[in-house]
Amino acid sequence: MIFPSETKLLETISRVTPHVHQTPVITSSFINKLTGAEVVFKCENFQKMGAFKMRGAINAILQLSEAQKKAGVVTHSSGNFAQALSLAAKNLGVKAYIVMPSNAPTVKKEAVKGYGGIITESEPTLQAREAAASKIEREKGATFLHPSNNLDVILGQGTAASELLKKHSDLNAIFTPVGGGGLIAGTALSVHYFGKNCRTIGGEPMAADDAFRSLQSGKIETNTTANTIADGLKTNLGDVNFPIIQQLVSDIIRVEETEIKAAMQLLWERLKLVTEASSAVPLAALIRDRHRFKGEKVGIVLSGGNVDLLNLPF
Amino acid sequence: MIFPSETKLLETISRVTPHVHQTPVITSSFINKLTGAEVVFKCENFQKMGAFKMRGAINAILQLSEAQKKAGVVTHSSGNFAQALSLAAKNLGVKAYIVMPSNAPTVKKEAVKGYGGIITESEPTLQAREAAASKIEREKGATFLHPSNNLDVILGQGTAASELLKKHSDLNAIFTPVGGGGLIAGTALSVHYFGKNCRTIGGEPMAADDAFRSLQSGKIETNTTANTIADGLKTNLGDVNFPIIQQLVSDIIRVEETEIKAAMQLLWERLKLVTEASSAVPLAALIRDRHRFKGEKVGIVLSGGNVDLLNLPF
Repeated sequence: MIFPSETKLLETISRVTPHVHQTPVITSSFINKLTGAEVVFKCENFQKMGAFKMRGAINAILQLSEAQKKAGVVTHSSGNFAQALSLAAKNLGVKAYIVMPSNAPTVKKEAVKGYGGIITESEPTLQAREAAASKIEREKGATFLHPSNNLDVILGQGTAASELLKKHSDLNAIFTPVGGGGLIAGTALSVHYFGKNCRTIGGEPMAADDAFRSLQSGKIETNTTANTIADGLKTNLGDVNFPIIQQLVSDIIRVEETEIKAAMQLLWERLKLVTEASSAVPLAALIRDRHRFKGEKVGIVLSGGNVDLLNLPF
Repeated sequence: MIFPSETKLLETISRVTPHVHQTPVITSSFINKLTGAEVVFKCENFQKMGAFKMRGAINAILQLSEAQKKAGVVTHSSGNFAQALSLAAKNLGVKAYIVMPSNAPTVKKEAVKGYGGIITESEPTLQAREAAASKIEREKGATFLHPSNNLDVILGQGTAASELLKKHSDLNAIFTPVGGGGLIAGTALSVHYFGKNCRTIGGEPMAADDAFRSLQSGKIETNTTANTIADGLKTNLGDVNFPIIQQLVSDIIRVEETEIKAAMQLLWERLKLVTEASSAVPLAALIRDRHRFKGEKVGIVLSGGNVDLLNLPF
């Protein structure tokens, strides 16, 4: 497999940076003491629309031709990418068609509408969502953008780690959550080109450990059930990001639900950060395997902060 | 009344700065649009122990003689000052005796213990708390430090606004919550010496509007009841901070409980900041009277982030 070149990643950074927040990096002496590592948190919960997904959405739209931009973009997502594509498209003067399952939480539908996304509801199965998106592609001429299995999206997501490595070039590891694979694949590319003795580590819920199993079996595995509070991490890897993950990710550490909740509580109580459960997964992974990272400098990408305050796990 | 001089405030800044976090300043285009003002948030929820009170506690202890430091410090507080004095004392190698009402939440007692404070429980009346503190003064020779009515504490609290004005010298107003009066008095001193055409504005719950009434009557008023979720703001002003507030605070804006809850929800949902209800009061005040601040540049001191996640108002 030939990875996207360093030039391509550098071009992505130049393209994406003017359109996103350079999110702050936060530290906690409590977390350092707890883990024995020097930990820096990249706060993508402070990103526009509240998650790193804004980066990939911006990059993918900016790569379209003028004709494509005029016809709009379409995706199916009930999560952060729906909001990200809506806001990125709005900011760039492009229409965004969002296919959402009919049972998606009202708060998520409202958020998409608030960012100007045009919602089409579908049955809550992957087939129904894909069919609805295909119909919009055909009828509107809109370009389909996958939330995680699209190279421009992957490169865009990688800019969070690039920013972090620019500030902290001596990181020994960067941890991200693993869901559809876009963030970790992009992060791994940034670590590959800009890290020095740095490795990329994934955190994944035990209850949705498809990526861990995929790395073991050498082919993309799926989750038959995914009973985890980290609801952003239930999706599977794709054929674009999996080869990158296979070659550039050092390890995936799996964590229990109780560990995710405890890590989330630390982020809220100690770091005073509103973060979603998925963001707590890489911290939970570091805490679980802290003996392996003692004395190292570790970055953690806090993926986002879009939570339903009426439905917290505390 | 003769205020503490500019020199005294500058000395305080030099003294306090090495011992506290230079907390980040955060902005939100959503809040700017909502208020019509350019708003910058000074995030004291990211301060050590999670609140601005660390600043005053550090300053007050550093002003003690070596003999006084050896004998320790004492205060009565069920809130953030109890934790602040405990941690500040621990960091400076001093003993901290904390009188807490027996009905204080376990989470607050545990936090004080975690920071090394030595707790004495008392009946939950002001008289009982004062008596218990006096006993410790007599028996241990400890120095009593009032949470808000002590000039060194007031000067220390003012350093948050000084930092903010150093970064944003063109602020037209700085909003703080008003509880015991330490934060707003210190802020008003910083605004007086370092602001240019800047005024100090207080936010106060309608249900505990003693400071508003005190400014009207010209004497310190008390709250007979204080049924507000902003539990840090139930205390009254004191004879040290009241004269400063009388002369240097432009206005106190009172807000309803529903407005406090709505502002708190904005801080959590939109800014992704874990902040206590008291921190939401100045934002609620700005939103309520936003017509008066249209086009202005406004700073808001987010006082702290110590909340009980099991007892949120959402």
